[in-house]
Amino acid sequence: MPQYKAPLNDMKFIFNDLLGAEQHYKNFAEGEEATPDMIDAILTECARFAEERLSPLNQTGDEQGCELVDGNVKTPEGFKEAYQEYVAGGWQGLSHPIEYGGQGLPVSLGVLKSEIISTANWSWGMYPGLSLGAMNTIYLHGDEQQKALYLTKLTEGTWSGTMCLTEPQCGTDLGQVKTKAVPNDDGSYTISGTKIFISAGDHDFTDNIVHIVLARLPDAPKGTRGISLFIVPKFLPDNDGNVGEFNNVSVGSLEVKMGIKGSATCVMNFDGSKGYLIGPENKGLQCMFTFMNTARIGTGLQGSCAAELSFQGALSYARERLSMRSLSGKKAPDKVADPIIVHPDVRRMLLTQKAFAEGGRALIYYSALKADYLVHGATEEIRENADDDLGFLTPIVKAFLTETGYEAANLGMQVYGGHGYIKEWGMEQIVRDTRISMLYEGTTGIQALDLLGRKILLDKGTAFRRFSKELGQYCKGQSKFVSGKQRKKMKKMLSELTWINRQWSYLTLRVFVNSMRNRDEVGSASVDYLMYSGYIVLAYMWALQAEKAYEKLAEGVSNPEFYESKIRTAEFYFARLLPRTKSHYAAMMAGADTLMSLDEAHFAF
Amino acid sequence: MPQYKAPLNDMKFIFNDLLGAEQHYKNFAEGEEATPDMIDAILTECARFAEERLSPLNQTGDEQGCELVDGNVKTPEGFKEAYQEYVAGGWQGLSHPIEYGGQGLPVSLGVLKSEIISTANWSWGMYPGLSLGAMNTIYLHGDEQQKALYLTKLTEGTWSGTMCLTEPQCGTDLGQVKTKAVPNDDGSYTISGTKIFISAGDHDFTDNIVHIVLARLPDAPKGTRGISLFIVPKFLPDNDGNVGEFNNVSVGSLEVKMGIKGSATCVMNFDGSKGYLIGPENKGLQCMFTFMNTARIGTGLQGSCAAELSFQGALSYARERLSMRSLSGKKAPDKVADPIIVHPDVRRMLLTQKAFAEGGRALIYYSALKADYLVHGATEEIRENADDDLGFLTPIVKAFLTETGYEAANLGMQVYGGHGYIKEWGMEQIVRDTRISMLYEGTTGIQALDLLGRKILLDKGTAFRRFSKELGQYCKGQSKFVSGKQRKKMKKMLSELTWINRQWSYLTLRVFVNSMRNRDEVGSASVDYLMYSGYIVLAYMWALQAEKAYEKLAEGVSNPEFYESKIRTAEFYFARLLPRTKSHYAAMMAGADTLMSLDEAHFAF
Repeated sequence: MPQYKAPLNDMKFIFNDLLGAEQHYKNFAEGEEATPDMIDAILTECARFAEERLSPLNQTGDEQGCELVDGNVKTPEGFKEAYQEYVAGGWQGLSHPIEYGGQGLPVSLGVLKSEIISTANWSWGMYPGLSLGAMNTIYLHGDEQQKALYLTKLTEGTWSGTMCLTEPQCGTDLGQVKTKAVPNDDGSYTISGTKIFISAGDHDFTDNIVHIVLARLPDAPKGTRGISLFIVPKFLPDNDGNVGEFNNVSVGSLEVKMGIKGSATCVMNFDGSKGYLIGPENKGLQCMFTFMNTARIGTGLQGSCAAELSFQGALSYARERLSMRSLSGKKAPDKVADPIIVHPDVRRMLLTQKAFAEGGRALIYYSALKADYLVHGATEEIRENADDDLGFLTPIVKAFLTETGYEAANLGMQVYGGHGYIKEWGMEQIVRDTRISMLYEGTTGIQALDLLGRKILLDKGTAFRRFSKELGQYCKGQSKFVSGKQRKKMKKMLSELTWINRQWSYLTLRVFVNSMRNRDEVGSASVDYLMYSGYIVLAYMWALQAEKAYEKLAEGVSNPEFYESKIRTAEFYFARLLPRTKSHYAAMMAGADTLMSLDEAHFAF
Repeated sequence: MPQYKAPLNDMKFIFNDLLGAEQHYKNFAEGEEATPDMIDAILTECARFAEERLSPLNQTGDEQGCELVDGNVKTPEGFKEAYQEYVAGGWQGLSHPIEYGGQGLPVSLGVLKSEIISTANWSWGMYPGLSLGAMNTIYLHGDEQQKALYLTKLTEGTWSGTMCLTEPQCGTDLGQVKTKAVPNDDGSYTISGTKIFISAGDHDFTDNIVHIVLARLPDAPKGTRGISLFIVPKFLPDNDGNVGEFNNVSVGSLEVKMGIKGSATCVMNFDGSKGYLIGPENKGLQCMFTFMNTARIGTGLQGSCAAELSFQGALSYARERLSMRSLSGKKAPDKVADPIIVHPDVRRMLLTQKAFAEGGRALIYYSALKADYLVHGATEEIRENADDDLGFLTPIVKAFLTETGYEAANLGMQVYGGHGYIKEWGMEQIVRDTRISMLYEGTTGIQALDLLGRKILLDKGTAFRRFSKELGQYCKGQSKFVSGKQRKKMKKMLSELTWINRQWSYLTLRVFVNSMRNRDEVGSASVDYLMYSGYIVLAYMWALQAEKAYEKLAEGVSNPEFYESKIRTAEFYFARLLPRTKSHYAAMMAGADTLMSLDEAHFAF
């Protein structure tokens, strides 16, 4: 397994230099403490923890997996101790309010923390990660008493939380939820039903586990309009947070999965468990959606984390493994063969990984800064605009970054040749671990429908037009830091981006018009549309990076190689990856008939 | 795990109707027995064996894996018994000469057998599959005594064989092979060295295992010109084939792998083992290459097998799983939701799988018929032309079909949503099992260099031009069976194919010219060139199928749905998959600078 090394140079370049986090944080009270020095100290310490504590547990966690012992989940060796250290360091509450025990730092900084932790050990990171979902739900929809009791414990990390949505008969189609909530005289509810695919549904990290459960009241309307949200703790606490009676929340079984084996995926049985309504009756789904956009950045993160980790592993192997001679002449004549990094196709794979890892990082941070406005924005209007902007970006972040992250993980394995298939090297684990990211939190297909059907067509393209306008204006602006031959290269990049941005607008209109005629045109174009959009958004991130690199080089820097590398990677991206838009464009223009004309009964004989 | 059902209708359509196997077999003595009735009987019986015996062992084989017990490999439960039945049925020698105990049927028929067996259970199929490699080597390069002793046992299946090429320090770069062969007075050799990644290196199926080992004589020239080939049996036999003394061939360890867990991948130690030279001294690599083309059809097969099996699993799930309503109105109003096959994006995934599975099948059979000429061709010229044609096709068959097969396997998993990630359903196993196919027998990158560097540039494009000419002439030929509106559709398909065939020629010339200037242009274009070529070759296969379907419909048939389905799938392929050539075209035109300009030291900081 590659020993993870947090790429702090790249992280700081993107966060500070490229996106101007320092200036950005001046817009928020929460940003006051987040000075560059503070950020630096946090990242350094987080990197140390992740590299020393979490990275070594990544492969052993996969080997050992989780076990169900006497009805309770036993996590792999060392997981619990690492969590105790994490809690002692105050990491769980980094971006949560001081009044509930958090450190009150901006949401975006929490994303950088998550990146470091999750790249080192995605399975481990899912336990505190899921807890963040429960924390956000309670923070946004809980009453003061619920916040004081549950949010404080969750922010400290002494309790953890889960999200219980999926049932055997439904994942995406939550209107089919059957779990029942019957009101009791004391204002509580009796919850009965089975939930599946519950990450961190049980474990040995904390004294208590707080489940956020979607369930249906007895008189609830059918479908999605009859679902409510409940807090259901594993053990019933008193008002001071002392853990009491067992609440009949039990693990039916542990799923045996392709990967993320250190993460417990539970079937959870609620057998007359006591629950507490959170948010308004029958508005459970809306409550869920309020933080869905932020949560989905976290899932998109898995893609760029995988790209980064696999890139680190592949790069070191490509520098060491000796095989064949360069076609353009020996490069290491003193050795038995050349290191494989001399071969153009190996470089193609490494550069693809690098472009997705670093481009994805930029897109994640860019989105995270928008999330700051969503959470900490001063006015309702600012928050709503940020929500729309983020709403447009998140399906792209989630689906495009996980699809490309999976590709990158596969390329990393490919660099190792046959050795990539052997567990020992850890490269195949990255592939297995990452594969889930295209499935959970809404599959790629569902994200694509969300983007095209909901965020663009329903919204009449408002957020899309705002983004596309920003991109167009950026392209128009003449870069003052770029001169001479470099200027010509940068201008070429920007003119390509201008052109494809226009095609994007045209295409969006075409799909819009087609969908008025036939609703199946939406689903027929959606995944290609999402991928197409993703390549453009990432091109924007790479143009930004190239331009900033030229600026830094013009200023005169002590490490010009770093910035040259950014420019070369941007050029690679524009030359080799952005053209994938051509195929997606053609595929979606082919129309729905190519998919719908075959009778369901005639797919096979 | 999907219960495999051999798609005999499709297999027979492609083999008999599309490619005219009956007429083809009249060209060979070996084809005399291969009448349509005989073929039908063989396929039916093989399907029964695979469906009833092998398919049920696919998932349990993955769960149990292989074990090393007292130095010997124990295969999963039921594997050995299935092999005994297979041997009793005379399956191993189906396409091998009657004089060595085979059934003397054409090589191509063996490919259909392999397809059925390997789709049902790839891991199991590797044991007899690797043996075929050893059989072919001995048949082509062994002396009469070696054939009488070893080939007979291998053809019966009472012994099995392996190919021992790879060593820890080298896989692709076999010039680095270190295993030593020291001549003994009795004409034998003493073999010492370690080989890795030896599939079927040990097992409990047979009394003896015959290893074909690449090793170096004491005075051998350095590099690839100093490698010889040896027969090294696990137990030394007498001349009557009675197994005797242990030959110090032992299993160092079993690899722990991502998939194909039922297949034993061994580290093999040869510790002063007795070996027998096969073929001329120092010509071991050339001897290996003589049957490499045929062997690689077998590996390409893994891709289309995976596409087929995953398609079968995904299709049945898509018909049963109820989720959401069709955007164009309820399709199953009596049910709680519509089956997901109504959703365009699910159909996109299924059709992609179908297009790769059935298109891949056509390409495999098309290549297998060429292999008949290579093996059974009447004159040296016929055999050499067939070798050239096949040499051109095999890197495409091997790499393109495994890359697209892996995509198809991932799509099948994707159709299942989160359930696809759970082992129980068997869909993730197909992904894990198939992943190796892009790595072994030469990675995709190596196949691409073989295609572009060796088969096209070194050969000055002779085989390429012959194929492209065949394709061009096919497109020009007016289809007499297609009339009216259909005729227009078929002509459109053929004119697209004509156009891209011309682009292919132009592009090949461009790459040729570029490579004269800079050898790194070859490796820079190679994988994109291979994938681009693959999409065109598969388009040819789909055009052929559509035309044959129109012909059948014009004749009047009792099952028009089958042929309509072929035409719809061909249209889907041309509209949605063939356009991927656009991205590959652009990427390879970007040139080597985009890959080579970044200094090796500056990939990461």
